[in-house]
Amino acid sequence: MKNFMDDDFCLYNDTAKHLFHEYAENLPIIDYHCHISPKEIYEDRRYDNIAQIWLGGKNPDGSYSGDHYKWRVMRANGATEDKTTGDAPAFEKFLEFAKALEMAIGNPMYHWSHLELKKYFGIDTPLNEDNAKEIWDKTSEMLKNDPDLTVRGIIRKSNVAFVGTTDDPIDSLEWHEKLAKEDLGFIVRPSFRPDRAVNISKPGFADYIKKLAACTGRESLKTTAEVCSALEERLDFFKAHGCKASDHGLDYVPFRLGSDAEADAVLAKALNGEPVSVKEAEIYQTKMLLFLAKKYHRENIAMEIHYSCSRNVNERMFKMEGPDTGYDMIAKSNCYDEIAALFSELDKTNELPKTIVFSLDHNDFNQLATCTAAFQSDEIPGKMQLGAAWWFLDSKDGMEEQMRSLGNLGLLGNFIGMLTDSRSFLSYTRHDYFRRIACNLIGKWVEDGEYPNNEKSLKKIVEGISYYNAKRYFGL
Amino acid sequence: MKNFMDDDFCLYNDTAKHLFHEYAENLPIIDYHCHISPKEIYEDRRYDNIAQIWLGGKNPDGSYSGDHYKWRVMRANGATEDKTTGDAPAFEKFLEFAKALEMAIGNPMYHWSHLELKKYFGIDTPLNEDNAKEIWDKTSEMLKNDPDLTVRGIIRKSNVAFVGTTDDPIDSLEWHEKLAKEDLGFIVRPSFRPDRAVNISKPGFADYIKKLAACTGRESLKTTAEVCSALEERLDFFKAHGCKASDHGLDYVPFRLGSDAEADAVLAKALNGEPVSVKEAEIYQTKMLLFLAKKYHRENIAMEIHYSCSRNVNERMFKMEGPDTGYDMIAKSNCYDEIAALFSELDKTNELPKTIVFSLDHNDFNQLATCTAAFQSDEIPGKMQLGAAWWFLDSKDGMEEQMRSLGNLGLLGNFIGMLTDSRSFLSYTRHDYFRRIACNLIGKWVEDGEYPNNEKSLKKIVEGISYYNAKRYFGL
Amino acid sequence: MKNFMDDDFCLYNDTAKHLFHEYAENLPIIDYHCHISPKEIYEDRRYDNIAQIWLGGKNPDGSYSGDHYKWRVMRANGATEDKTTGDAPAFEKFLEFAKALEMAIGNPMYHWSHLELKKYFGIDTPLNEDNAKEIWDKTSEMLKNDPDLTVRGIIRKSNVAFVGTTDDPIDSLEWHEKLAKEDLGFIVRPSFRPDRAVNISKPGFADYIKKLAACTGRESLKTTAEVCSALEERLDFFKAHGCKASDHGLDYVPFRLGSDAEADAVLAKALNGEPVSVKEAEIYQTKMLLFLAKKYHRENIAMEIHYSCSRNVNERMFKMEGPDTGYDMIAKSNCYDEIAALFSELDKTNELPKTIVFSLDHNDFNQLATCTAAFQSDEIPGKMQLGAAWWFLDSKDGMEEQMRSLGNLGLLGNFIGMLTDSRSFLSYTRHDYFRRIACNLIGKWVEDGEYPNNEKSLKKIVEGISYYNAKRYFGL
Repeated sequence: MKNFMDDDFCLYNDTAKHLFHEYAENLPIIDYHCHISPKEIYEDRRYDNIAQIWLGGKNPDGSYSGDHYKWRVMRANGATEDKTTGDAPAFEKFLEFAKALEMAIGNPMYHWSHLELKKYFGIDTPLNEDNAKEIWDKTSEMLKNDPDLTVRGIIRKSNVAFVGTTDDPIDSLEWHEKLAKEDLGFIVRPSFRPDRAVNISKPGFADYIKKLAACTGRESLKTTAEVCSALEERLDFFKAHGCKASDHGLDYVPFRLGSDAEADAVLAKALNGEPVSVKEAEIYQTKMLLFLAKKYHRENIAMEIHYSCSRNVNERMFKMEGPDTGYDMIAKSNCYDEIAALFSELDKTNELPKTIVFSLDHNDFNQLATCTAAFQSDEIPGKMQLGAAWWFLDSKDGMEEQMRSLGNLGLLGNFIGMLTDSRSFLSYTRHDYFRRIACNLIGKWVEDGEYPNNEKSLKKIVEGISYYNAKRYFGL
Repeated sequence: MKNFMDDDFCLYNDTAKHLFHEYAENLPIIDYHCHISPKEIYEDRRYDNIAQIWLGGKNPDGSYSGDHYKWRVMRANGATEDKTTGDAPAFEKFLEFAKALEMAIGNPMYHWSHLELKKYFGIDTPLNEDNAKEIWDKTSEMLKNDPDLTVRGIIRKSNVAFVGTTDDPIDSLEWHEKLAKEDLGFIVRPSFRPDRAVNISKPGFADYIKKLAACTGRESLKTTAEVCSALEERLDFFKAHGCKASDHGLDYVPFRLGSDAEADAVLAKALNGEPVSVKEAEIYQTKMLLFLAKKYHRENIAMEIHYSCSRNVNERMFKMEGPDTGYDMIAKSNCYDEIAALFSELDKTNELPKTIVFSLDHNDFNQLATCTAAFQSDEIPGKMQLGAAWWFLDSKDGMEEQMRSLGNLGLLGNFIGMLTDSRSFLSYTRHDYFRRIACNLIGKWVEDGEYPNNEKSLKKIVEGISYYNAKRYFGL
Repeated sequence: MKNFMDDDFCLYNDTAKHLFHEYAENLPIIDYHCHISPKEIYEDRRYDNIAQIWLGGKNPDGSYSGDHYKWRVMRANGATEDKTTGDAPAFEKFLEFAKALEMAIGNPMYHWSHLELKKYFGIDTPLNEDNAKEIWDKTSEMLKNDPDLTVRGIIRKSNVAFVGTTDDPIDSLEWHEKLAKEDLGFIVRPSFRPDRAVNISKPGFADYIKKLAACTGRESLKTTAEVCSALEERLDFFKAHGCKASDHGLDYVPFRLGSDAEADAVLAKALNGEPVSVKEAEIYQTKMLLFLAKKYHRENIAMEIHYSCSRNVNERMFKMEGPDTGYDMIAKSNCYDEIAALFSELDKTNELPKTIVFSLDHNDFNQLATCTAAFQSDEIPGKMQLGAAWWFLDSKDGMEEQMRSLGNLGLLGNFIGMLTDSRSFLSYTRHDYFRRIACNLIGKWVEDGEYPNNEKSLKKIVEGISYYNAKRYFGL
């Protein structure tokens, strides 16, 4: 029996151990997509206790923020909302989480939590109801005093080279500007996420377009060309601040070509507060996606597409707690024709940017692996990427399936690897988790005689997936 | 090489063996969903030979009953229908099954059959064409004389604590009543399956509604409110007989809200023998599902939903043999939006009952695991359940995939575990099969250092999945 | 650690090794579906170098032919099109492929290439950039001089008993006729692929119908009955040349019944160059599929159906290079109702032919396994077959998943096994690859005590899947 989560965690063969410890373990982290706050980095925030950094919950202003992955685990164990996100004392919430975690066998949350306890707090005892108080006390003490446990300390301790935050086009990037002047030991850059300007059917669209106009010194934005022009200006601003990637979060990927006049009419409707049909929305969205993608191509900015999520499906709780509170599910988005058509339309004029596609549905992996393979080019090896297992799929099983799919149908050796997509500063251990799983998979193939035990090739592949491929891909 | 299906069958590591033999093996069985006949339990039926209990076939009245799983295996080996379900001598049918079974490598039928031969007949020789006669003779002798091989004897020998049959609302429950007065050593309770009152487009609907009216002493049922009222009355009657669960078998889960007037108009059409469109049917079905679910919630009755089956696809054979004769297939039912909307509509008013969802399509597991997780509550740990691998998925691969999906995306520790869904009294070994596979999965995680080797936690999880979670969930 | 791709490649347990080496390895190959040229067999072509036989590319006439699987691997590594399919010197292309192959860890291309190097060239060094020149020289020398390395030599060396080519109904079969008179040591027979007469919406349909008319000595074909009659005549001609199988390549399987008049109207439109709607096309296609399937049944010709591919999705490259150049992807074709309806319609009148269904989407395996199982009959064991993992799925993972699905839901023992679907004469090693993977899976079940270690049964199953089932199925 292997020891519980020791140094060889997830490494089940000698080649895997060798590859991980020799090549993967100590490489810096490029965390090219996450949701952490540049302000908190700048202010080098400290947390009061582990419930605050791990769980979060209802904020004084009534909004909710924190790790909804953990909230789901707690709710599935029958925890009251009070002890999950509510007003219960912080330790009680932590205790409730500890109790739920015991039942979470086979859940990546079990591994993430213990990787974090070990890495940041030196705790290698499995957390449970019995020792929750002891661990609470120890972590509270350390969070208060340990110089490595401020936000910046954590990032440095995690050997992070690059942080790509996720930012709205109208963001002032003030914190990024301030951070750029500091000697942090790591780089923080914004990523461009224009969802609110693209998702025309979502509430608040018209208001957002007003803000976008204001932000770019225009009186109003009345045509798609004007919206595009404003976004282009903002992207230039982002690029001037070191932006390397954009991101699009879509329920599904639309593709419906329409004339400028049609798109403008849809926009006018939406700005006027009138309802917009699905087809109309798709015409507008497609126009925007094509424009932005071409711009990304010109600016050598990678395009991320995240899709196949059904959000806020629990209406009662959504009304109470708002988005990103743990009430989302995996969708089945049969939009492969549209994805291929979008790529093809862009490729026709050689304006398809570097693109990374993430689906929340593992049943899409093979499709996306074959779709991206049909649009590779000599601009850069692995220009089109099947993104790492994302969100609900970010488990040992999910990561293995994504890498097997990519291995079978593309070039795993050119994979740009992991991102945290995190909302917590302790989540960097997910890169460690990923690298272990990748090394184990590769090591297994070598041990099984399915790939030669060639040190040079293996080093190149493992280091590439862990670090160098992303470094090259994003031009860091 | 492990011995063929010995005591450590499916247990590939020491922890798995320990967990199974120490904690899982000897716990009672809660078989909360099956299709066995309470009449046969009451009459303590004996079978003439193994073909009768294993295969069944055409009945004297021209109907067909028996194990269509086995019939499919035989047909795939080119058996004539005469020797499968027809008039061929019983031994010839058994011989034909033995020949087909040899080819069924990798099929759960291979394991089920041999688990049953071993458990009930003490036979541990693999069945094949050569020894079929010998096994026929031995089992025939035992079925005639062994006191453990009457229906009640089999159930007791199987250590069954609870049997939940599947019953139509108009069932008189006479056999359940009689059974309730006996000292059986196990409990038999009805489950409420109102499919014939819900599936408005299926043949016989109008007739059924007349029967439902008659059964509840009404002249007729003309509105959805009246149908609901009749069903409510029947559910009260079922509850008075100890009903703990309801069941809905749906091609797919519909969700289409309509007014009472609309639903009533659809009902009127159907009662009048007029065709009902898909949309119309959905309005009626949704109305019924919402009403019944709320009633289940009030009565603390669990709601089972089984969907994604395409039934009777072979028209020629369906005309000859009727339903449930082995001509069904897995469907792809892209109804995730509808499932989530149904749950959300019920949850809005805090009327969502305990729910167990089963899809016949393994591609749905991750979706359902994330959907149920979005509707958990503090009413009971694991209120919303991803049901065990069902029917065509009830194999080692299917069960592992279901448990991995639930493990990755929910709390496996709160899983209520297995049911037989059986039409044969010998099928209780499927619980044994399931527990072995669950223990092996859990044991593997422990051996791999992915979950701590903590006896207390493992005992709680293994005993929970095997028995106690279902006991608590159904309030037994 | 196992040696890289040695004699026990893919065989991870002793039973697997025994089964493969004793029973599977040396059986002849029935390659019942491929795309190799009977003309090249007749002419016993020699290749100049390994780039020519492995990669191919742009032909002098501007068309493209060669192994687009390899082209995709090269493009994913950033190779220029010039060095992939273009005018770059042959060695440079080979070098580019060698460089890409190093990154192809986990890709079946890695295994196929090395199986071919070993089998045909005696090379067991892993190909990479460093040794590419050496391997180029050695293979070039051998391709020029080795008597085993002409087309016929390769086929004989591969122990091929039967080659089923893929041919258009209007093919003169002149090369098949010539081959039939030779003493080859193997048999080459045509397969009937009437796609161009069925896929009414594809460009060139009207022209094709004219050619079909001419080929059958008719002035024109104006009704579906006339098209059917012409195809029937051609099928008789094919059958006279030993045809054993037909093949249908469909984006998805349609099923839309219409009257003869409706189908004729659609045909008239298409012949007149007018656009045909999806529904109209389906009416025509369904009519043709039903007619042809019934004819196949009468003639005891197996029907292959390949579907769920989205072809030529990269419009720019399709315009440049044409079809089959590496720009296809897996589709999601939710046509299970239609497949079942097609089978049912044919089965109603006992006219359903032996059928093999292949989907490019692994998510369909369970559905197809249950669908085919609902249409088995006593005409022949395993009349309805879930086809082997095809094209993009033709990997270790894909093949295992297909066999597990078939094992779980049907009779793996009656599986007719592998085909190459190849466009290269060196691809016969894919049968070796498949047999290893099948033996490993079966051996694992035996070693795990899940199937008895009964030599007689295992021999029957392994030899059946490798050779005898296909021999019996196709009546060879």
